[in-house]
Amino acid sequence: MDFTPSEAEALERILRWRRDVRHFRPEPIDEARIERLRHAMELAPSVGNSRPWRVIRVDDMALRRAVHDNFQQANAQAAQSYDAQKRADYDRLKLAGLDAAPLQLAVFTVTDPEQGHGLGRRTMPETLQASTAMAIYTLWLTARADNLGVGMVSILDPHAIERLLAVPQDWVFSAWLCIGTPEFTDDTPLLHRAGWQGNTAHPWERR
Amino acid sequence: MDFTPSEAEALERILRWRRDVRHFRPEPIDEARIERLRHAMELAPSVGNSRPWRVIRVDDMALRRAVHDNFQQANAQAAQSYDAQKRADYDRLKLAGLDAAPLQLAVFTVTDPEQGHGLGRRTMPETLQASTAMAIYTLWLTARADNLGVGMVSILDPHAIERLLAVPQDWVFSAWLCIGTPEFTDDTPLLHRAGWQGNTAHPWERR
Repeated sequence: MDFTPSEAEALERILRWRRDVRHFRPEPIDEARIERLRHAMELAPSVGNSRPWRVIRVDDMALRRAVHDNFQQANAQAAQSYDAQKRADYDRLKLAGLDAAPLQLAVFTVTDPEQGHGLGRRTMPETLQASTAMAIYTLWLTARADNLGVGMVSILDPHAIERLLAVPQDWVFSAWLCIGTPEFTDDTPLLHRAGWQGNTAHPWERR
Repeated sequence: MDFTPSEAEALERILRWRRDVRHFRPEPIDEARIERLRHAMELAPSVGNSRPWRVIRVDDMALRRAVHDNFQQANAQAAQSYDAQKRADYDRLKLAGLDAAPLQLAVFTVTDPEQGHGLGRRTMPETLQASTAMAIYTLWLTARADNLGVGMVSILDPHAIERLLAVPQDWVFSAWLCIGTPEFTDDTPLLHRAGWQGNTAHPWERR
């Protein structure tokens, strides 16, 4: 299976126009498109083919409100860690689309999955969480190629989310995903545009 | 920026034919192709736009041999954890392409980067490692679209690699990447083909 330059260019454009989206239009997503996102995640790499990610789709409005409340608490605490000027900048940022995103997913990682029989993670157990990160990114890119936006929310108390959704003891919270049609598209990160943190690049060292 | 169905299909094919490659042809990779891989990593998402990944390209044969030795030790220890039948299966697997891959990268994560000013990682510091995982996967997919294979090696003592490459105190080892032209292509994970761990899928729960 060889890829053509035009396929490589398509990937490059999808990578370039992927954003962490926080501004969503409220209209629901067609179930067939959601099913394609679910299916794409299964193509992600994972240590020992263990596929340790677990996903809960949260439609219940009371649960969503509780998560939004948790975000607002965690965000207020984070804001207090900055001095006056940086805090004013922080307060102007919109850091989550929890208020409007029509599809919301809680993603967890199983800490000691049977699948994979431990292969590849004896010296580096964090490869399980890395597998989940790559599965999230697989969904993220697939969503973008289908003209949907994804926002990954980490300004949450992970243990509070685990309790709220009453997940098994061996699931740890990895991320909350907000998904929907974005209000706008951009090839530049919002935090760069907002002046919070410009894009930086580190050259590869050589040895 | 809207994407077409054919661009979405190109992405799906790249995801489907990406593999963790351990069988490489030895011929070197053109520097222009390596530069495209380096550039693609800069398109990865990162918490607070912090871009915490750091990459060392290792060409020195003595360093490569030391890493290969470390892999063989860690792999021998891992093999001992299985009972007789599973151990025989394990011993038949080829789990790294360290012997032949023409391009080899050590990838690290900065534990408290100035970039991003802490945004998004106060409650979940593991988002830094997740950012590095997504950067690795960005390179991985870009390589696949350019008909190169990538193998991610985690059967290594991370602290030994940090010492071997004498990295700064606040860098933690994330992965060793083997990159080159694959000896064969496949749309199915090697561990599934080998009977070690079949592909599994978990339905999304609903709340």
